[in-house]
Amino acid sequence: MFSKILIANRGEIAVRIIRTCREMGIETVAVYSEADRDALHTQMADEAVCIGPAAPGESYLNVQNIISATVLSGAEAIHPGFGFLSENSKFAKICEECNITFIGPGAECIENMGNKSNARSIMSKAGVSIIPGSKKAINSNEELLEVARNIGYPVMIKASAGGGGRGIRIVRSEDDLIRSYENAKAEARIAFGDDTIYLEKFIESPKHIEIQILGDNFGNIVYLGERDCSMQRRNQKLLEEAPGKVITDELRISMGEMAVRAAKAVRYNNAGTVEFLLDKDGNYYFMEMNTRIQVEHPVTEMITGIDLIKEQIKIAFGEKLSFSQQDIKINGHSIECRINAENVERGFMPSPGKITELYVPGGPNVRVDSAVYSGYNIPPYYDSMIAKLIVYGKDREEAICRMRRALGEFIIEGVNTNIDFQFELISSDEFIRGTYDTAFIEKNFKY
Amino acid sequence: MFSKILIANRGEIAVRIIRTCREMGIETVAVYSEADRDALHTQMADEAVCIGPAAPGESYLNVQNIISATVLSGAEAIHPGFGFLSENSKFAKICEECNITFIGPGAECIENMGNKSNARSIMSKAGVSIIPGSKKAINSNEELLEVARNIGYPVMIKASAGGGGRGIRIVRSEDDLIRSYENAKAEARIAFGDDTIYLEKFIESPKHIEIQILGDNFGNIVYLGERDCSMQRRNQKLLEEAPGKVITDELRISMGEMAVRAAKAVRYNNAGTVEFLLDKDGNYYFMEMNTRIQVEHPVTEMITGIDLIKEQIKIAFGEKLSFSQQDIKINGHSIECRINAENVERGFMPSPGKITELYVPGGPNVRVDSAVYSGYNIPPYYDSMIAKLIVYGKDREEAICRMRRALGEFIIEGVNTNIDFQFELISSDEFIRGTYDTAFIEKNFKY
Repeated sequence: MFSKILIANRGEIAVRIIRTCREMGIETVAVYSEADRDALHTQMADEAVCIGPAAPGESYLNVQNIISATVLSGAEAIHPGFGFLSENSKFAKICEECNITFIGPGAECIENMGNKSNARSIMSKAGVSIIPGSKKAINSNEELLEVARNIGYPVMIKASAGGGGRGIRIVRSEDDLIRSYENAKAEARIAFGDDTIYLEKFIESPKHIEIQILGDNFGNIVYLGERDCSMQRRNQKLLEEAPGKVITDELRISMGEMAVRAAKAVRYNNAGTVEFLLDKDGNYYFMEMNTRIQVEHPVTEMITGIDLIKEQIKIAFGEKLSFSQQDIKINGHSIECRINAENVERGFMPSPGKITELYVPGGPNVRVDSAVYSGYNIPPYYDSMIAKLIVYGKDREEAICRMRRALGEFIIEGVNTNIDFQFELISSDEFIRGTYDTAFIEKNFKY
Repeated sequence: MFSKILIANRGEIAVRIIRTCREMGIETVAVYSEADRDALHTQMADEAVCIGPAAPGESYLNVQNIISATVLSGAEAIHPGFGFLSENSKFAKICEECNITFIGPGAECIENMGNKSNARSIMSKAGVSIIPGSKKAINSNEELLEVARNIGYPVMIKASAGGGGRGIRIVRSEDDLIRSYENAKAEARIAFGDDTIYLEKFIESPKHIEIQILGDNFGNIVYLGERDCSMQRRNQKLLEEAPGKVITDELRISMGEMAVRAAKAVRYNNAGTVEFLLDKDGNYYFMEMNTRIQVEHPVTEMITGIDLIKEQIKIAFGEKLSFSQQDIKINGHSIECRINAENVERGFMPSPGKITELYVPGGPNVRVDSAVYSGYNIPPYYDSMIAKLIVYGKDREEAICRMRRALGEFIIEGVNTNIDFQFELISSDEFIRGTYDTAFIEKNFKY
């Protein structure tokens, strides 16, 4: 096994990785920016190397300094965590060239999945269900009508050069199609100087369901059930659970096998997540694949008993998966709330500053993955997520009661947090019913 | 279900009970002494009632004040925790007379098991293996020789009036028997003015193995596996684990069924623990039954997935057990370290005072049941145990690595603690082999 690993990240995920390394008897090297001298990961690792100023581009994204720190500290591998360099295929290649093991899939996997249209085409060829749509630009009204008829209403008209919601029209029947197409074309021409338009099926208020997979270097790939991550605000996940309440055993197997098919198509070799949109009729469509550990990985750990970080390290070291698909059993229910230092009432504006008082919930089946301590000064330069509160229960009802109890215990003073907002979410009827979709927060909260 | 429960205890067990009540939607009433105004349980409960001065006799053992607080707050039940009034059958009777549900077994169970010689005789009649010995005083050399021959060497000569180790002789062969008997008799006469002597089999360096049981009011009794609590210092448990490394499946079933037999003999109706001594040859002997929740109950919760406090409450409310023996499955391994505020190097002298800094370990499968927070002032009047650190792993090896990691993370400043000592214990070869017995600490540490 590796004797020393460098962690090219900060915050709770760096602490999370240090914990598993320590349990495996592997020494850890933290890297930190000038703003993170007092950070928990900096203090907790066996060694810590400053890699530059606060700005991420000069520190946590500074490939040269990170590689130097690795070589100088004698670490044999780099764990990139999530964000920063974790999905940078060039960084993965550089590691390889420097004889450093990148703890993640091969650079080619990252590259193939990083380019979304490329990924879509690979998946389509592999027989993975993708969102139906025109593969190329629409050039005439006749083509438009035909393509829309083929994919079925509602459809979404999208500008190829689009962004920020502009050049997008949702069309629910053929009567509105041509007019909307012409409006979108005109808007796109003005906004982007490019009126190329394509068509996609519109998935109405979908659920975001993702499948955790693990693949080794020998072609073995398994799935570890799903996570329901539909509780989102502006595409930012806030609260995740596993298993999904609306996911039947049949759907779980179907989506799991589809995720394995997706992973096999790129010879995937580490922990990864295949994200799907699930519509109200139980149809699901490949959205993207994340070629790294996810923020919400703990809920999968809780229901499968598998330490995903440990598996990542073992796979990167060249070990075969020690279990097969039929060994993976799902037990109980787990929920994660992301605890952010932010001011909910001011549009979720980040709220950095000093934590003057801290009480972390405890007791049975409460897990806290956090990067903070009493007296810690949250710097303003990075993501506002400061902790993840994870609970486990023998069933969903127990998990919900436990999360409400644990959120109620959590005290963070000195900065604003979203703890009360999370309490509202988890107490909402729609969450309790399990039917919430990605539009839930937008529809129900004025924030 | 009850709508309000009063918790007649303090410290981490009071907090532990509040947590489960909250998850069950039950309101809680804390009672506190004048020294515990700022205690966590006082702050955490929905209501809190001061029941007297710091001295336990005037507060946590003050039956009148506790009953008054219950009646005045409108609580329907009292959870006694462990220690204090938890094994006081008179208190259980008074609760009954006041129409308050005592969350524990019936007063008669408590009384029968509380008197050790009575318990021994009930168990013997029920066919539970007890430590072989003379049932009454030895009156002649001939009787002595015969009884010793029947129970087999080594034997222990004990003064009926004994205490503090005086009047005790361990005899390994017949050659030494009469002389030792006469010495013990003489010593007892001088020390206690009573030279009544009896004989018992001496169990050489036994393991302390206890079985958790649950019984309802309808005669259903199940066992939830064993705990190895052999890591003791002067009969005080320090570190517990479940399952026991040396316990085979056959032995587990045998001891489990014996514990159920013991519980059935007294129509036991709540959570309880049957304690056995296990000798090197796999023979085990009933020691005593604790008619309450134990400090070390969490390790059983971790490996069975059953919340024992919740079960206690449900049973006391009159519910039937919702599972049978074959539903109880043991998964993985759990270890608990008791964290005491004490000065190990000064003979484990209590070390009360203010906690100036606190960092509580987190991450996967680490549970902390604690009564402290940063800035808390540990009062000098009560037990020195301030927290329990509990870990869970898929196997014993993982649990040990995790406990070492978690102990390494734990920071408590301002008072002395036994964290480093626990680290030594868990890292010792004998603990790792699992062969440690109740004499381990005495033999290996000079403290």
